[in-house]
Amino acid sequence: MLLGCLSLGSAGLPYAAKREAMIRAECNASLGGAIALTPQEAAADRVLRAAKAEAYSSDPFLASRSFFQTQRQINASKLFTLLQPLPKGAALHLHFDSMLDTRWFLPVTYESNCFVCWPSTAALPVSFRFLTNATAGPTCEAGWQRMSTLRATTRNVTALDELVYEALSLPPASKQAYPDVDSAWRKFQALFGVVGGLLNYLPVYRRYVAAVMDRFVDDNVQRLELRGGLLSNITYTLDQVEQTAEFAVQLWLDTAASRKLNIAFIYSALRSQPPEAIALELRRAKELQAAFPSKVIGFDLVGQEDPGRPLVDFAAMLQAAASPRAGPPLPYVFHAGETKYFGAKADVNLYDALLLNTSRIGHGFALRNHPELRRAVRERGIGIEVCPLSNQVLGLVDDLRNHPLASFIAEALPVVISSDDPGFWGATAVNYDWWVAFVVAGEACAGIGLLKQLAINSIEQSLLTKGERAAVMSEWQRRWGQYVDWVVSQAK
Amino acid sequence: MLLGCLSLGSAGLPYAAKREAMIRAECNASLGGAIALTPQEAAADRVLRAAKAEAYSSDPFLASRSFFQTQRQINASKLFTLLQPLPKGAALHLHFDSMLDTRWFLPVTYESNCFVCWPSTAALPVSFRFLTNATAGPTCEAGWQRMSTLRATTRNVTALDELVYEALSLPPASKQAYPDVDSAWRKFQALFGVVGGLLNYLPVYRRYVAAVMDRFVDDNVQRLELRGGLLSNITYTLDQVEQTAEFAVQLWLDTAASRKLNIAFIYSALRSQPPEAIALELRRAKELQAAFPSKVIGFDLVGQEDPGRPLVDFAAMLQAAASPRAGPPLPYVFHAGETKYFGAKADVNLYDALLLNTSRIGHGFALRNHPELRRAVRERGIGIEVCPLSNQVLGLVDDLRNHPLASFIAEALPVVISSDDPGFWGATAVNYDWWVAFVVAGEACAGIGLLKQLAINSIEQSLLTKGERAAVMSEWQRRWGQYVDWVVSQAK
Repeated sequence: MLLGCLSLGSAGLPYAAKREAMIRAECNASLGGAIALTPQEAAADRVLRAAKAEAYSSDPFLASRSFFQTQRQINASKLFTLLQPLPKGAALHLHFDSMLDTRWFLPVTYESNCFVCWPSTAALPVSFRFLTNATAGPTCEAGWQRMSTLRATTRNVTALDELVYEALSLPPASKQAYPDVDSAWRKFQALFGVVGGLLNYLPVYRRYVAAVMDRFVDDNVQRLELRGGLLSNITYTLDQVEQTAEFAVQLWLDTAASRKLNIAFIYSALRSQPPEAIALELRRAKELQAAFPSKVIGFDLVGQEDPGRPLVDFAAMLQAAASPRAGPPLPYVFHAGETKYFGAKADVNLYDALLLNTSRIGHGFALRNHPELRRAVRERGIGIEVCPLSNQVLGLVDDLRNHPLASFIAEALPVVISSDDPGFWGATAVNYDWWVAFVVAGEACAGIGLLKQLAINSIEQSLLTKGERAAVMSEWQRRWGQYVDWVVSQAK
Repeated sequence: MLLGCLSLGSAGLPYAAKREAMIRAECNASLGGAIALTPQEAAADRVLRAAKAEAYSSDPFLASRSFFQTQRQINASKLFTLLQPLPKGAALHLHFDSMLDTRWFLPVTYESNCFVCWPSTAALPVSFRFLTNATAGPTCEAGWQRMSTLRATTRNVTALDELVYEALSLPPASKQAYPDVDSAWRKFQALFGVVGGLLNYLPVYRRYVAAVMDRFVDDNVQRLELRGGLLSNITYTLDQVEQTAEFAVQLWLDTAASRKLNIAFIYSALRSQPPEAIALELRRAKELQAAFPSKVIGFDLVGQEDPGRPLVDFAAMLQAAASPRAGPPLPYVFHAGETKYFGAKADVNLYDALLLNTSRIGHGFALRNHPELRRAVRERGIGIEVCPLSNQVLGLVDDLRNHPLASFIAEALPVVISSDDPGFWGATAVNYDWWVAFVVAGEACAGIGLLKQLAINSIEQSLLTKGERAAVMSEWQRRWGQYVDWVVSQAK
């Protein structure tokens, strides 16, 4: 289309001018490429591009290697520092129990009444639980041990702590990303249970929620849409009494309010369940929506897509639940296409997500092989929640230059950047994923216009009410102006 | 566009019908997806798809791992056997000195008068040369040694032969594809010289050319377009007399004619040279074109693109040489976009290749991030010469499901499949790359229609004269009919 304007073979323009026009046409067509910059934004753009050029001159290119190997170097980079205070609008793809670097839980295991169930075989996951005594807990074949007793009797506490951290996090011994999706997912899915024993202890949960919020505030995020399993009770006290999901939701809301963060929940059910179980979850989601209007704002199915049930298995029920007769609408925000295997169940989920009128697509990695679905996504403005580091860590891609994000940006698809489960790979909030997005989007086009568009996309793609959206956008604009001034002040 | 016909939210069609229509629309839009199959082709399609399903059920998925690890399993597969006799039309991206599994050269090193120059440091490449005595050869610091003497004095001939094969081929000790493009290219580029000392000995060269031809005949290829450096003399005799490039070209032509193979040459100059040197090569290319009309049919620049000079350095001269005043046109068939780095010199070469009216694009891996250039490529029907295994071996991608070929096929770009330098990674001819193309193109759409279209594309994209093209196409149709019958006969 754009190149159609340029008759490449014609004798009109000189070569250099035609070439420049081709490159400019592609940049203009890319995400944020056509944004007209103010003089101050243009000055900030030069600072950001200089920092990106530094990232490009590093050998090896950091985004080509496993995040487990490169995190420290990313932390030390000028670009990472420059991007951190960027006002990022909304973070829309997050699971609420995997938000915080799990090293945070190490001191938690030192607290009174922390017990561990360390199974005799490495194939079984470790469990933690706060208890008054060893017989008060759930079944544990090896027997519950008090962590303080275990530490007092071990010869090497440092080594024990490393074992505890290994049990609580994803990095494999080799520090490479997992080459195999299934093996990464086996460890990953088990982690929710391992971390949960510590996290869900109410005193810990309160501190966790506050710490999560603080990290998103540090990354200058205004809105979070948190996916979470909300069917059952979430937190427990020392006397093993469990609080309701409503209690937990209210705790998040209160903690967010005190930090001027705007948050909401996407009710998430495990896709491995049969249709009847999902129907029950949907009903529960609508109950919570009634209890927290504008705060429980969507429904999703989670868990690894390929071994899980495909969306089509639930299509009839999901369609019925979305009909006007079924009460106030609860938007669908489905995971779909989190696979590198063309033709897998996860790949086919993309069709169903669109047919079921999903508001956004979680991951959408496989959209790269579906030109017609990309067209539909663009025409209907369906946000693609891209979480590049998650895709690397869970084995979809090693070198992030091979992540389809670069091509989605080049095609100006409605991309938003998020971080999925950053705590499980030692990250926090969303700045690492923004860093990846900025460096893999190339040198020619991707400047401050891309960053601005990604932030605006995130607010436009959020499920805020109309009134909230205007307020968030207006506050974002204020922060953006401040940020641009600050970046300019960082020029050498 | 196609999905525009389907109002996804409408209450018209039932869910299953809408879903089926979406999937069918995408298949129809993919390469070969709209080809109407004869009943016999449909029967063959079922046999091929069953064999592909077997490939998909293997764990790990073979195309997800390094070819160095999986070649034997690919050889043993039903699908590989079924694809081998498929009439593949033309193979359009090949370098003439890296066509044959280099294990072929191991017995050559046993022949009389074979000498080796084995440098004292592993950083330097080994050299071979056929000589009458140790002082007759080019400079060799360590001194030329007769291979027969070396073998007679070594304790372990098997180990020596393994060292010789390692010197002659690319597989690294780990059997993984190279994770780093530059390290793969260092070994790769050096190989041409190592192999050359054996290959270019005239008696060996004659046998090599015949063996290459036989392998392409085995893979049922009708036309080869061979890239090669044709500036200097190519072959030498025992008395160290070098024959001209014209002599070598004639040798290839005669050998091909006796096997009813149609071949031609794309004159290839090294892109690391300065513009004056390239200008000289262009003049030489036109001389050869005059000497072999319709047999020296194109011009290209070769060698690793990123460290090499970008096309734009030569743009003025290449434009001038293509003007009507500069004599009969010699089509450009440029390598461009053989990189995973968005914004690299190789990436930018894509613009110049199009501006310089390239007839096809060698590799074009980076087109994935250039939607406007893909549109231009499709509109102008510019063939993309995709060589998936080469891209894996040279470090662009590990898991071939992440190769952009799948998306190029989904977008129905004018793809042709070739093999680049198969001999250097233990492959031969083109069947391995066809196998990759078929399995990574997914399960839903890619059947016999894709294979048929790829073969037709290759003939349409070749630089055959009009008369030759009609003859090759007619012969291809005859072979296709035979092949379809044979596949049907292989049904269980």
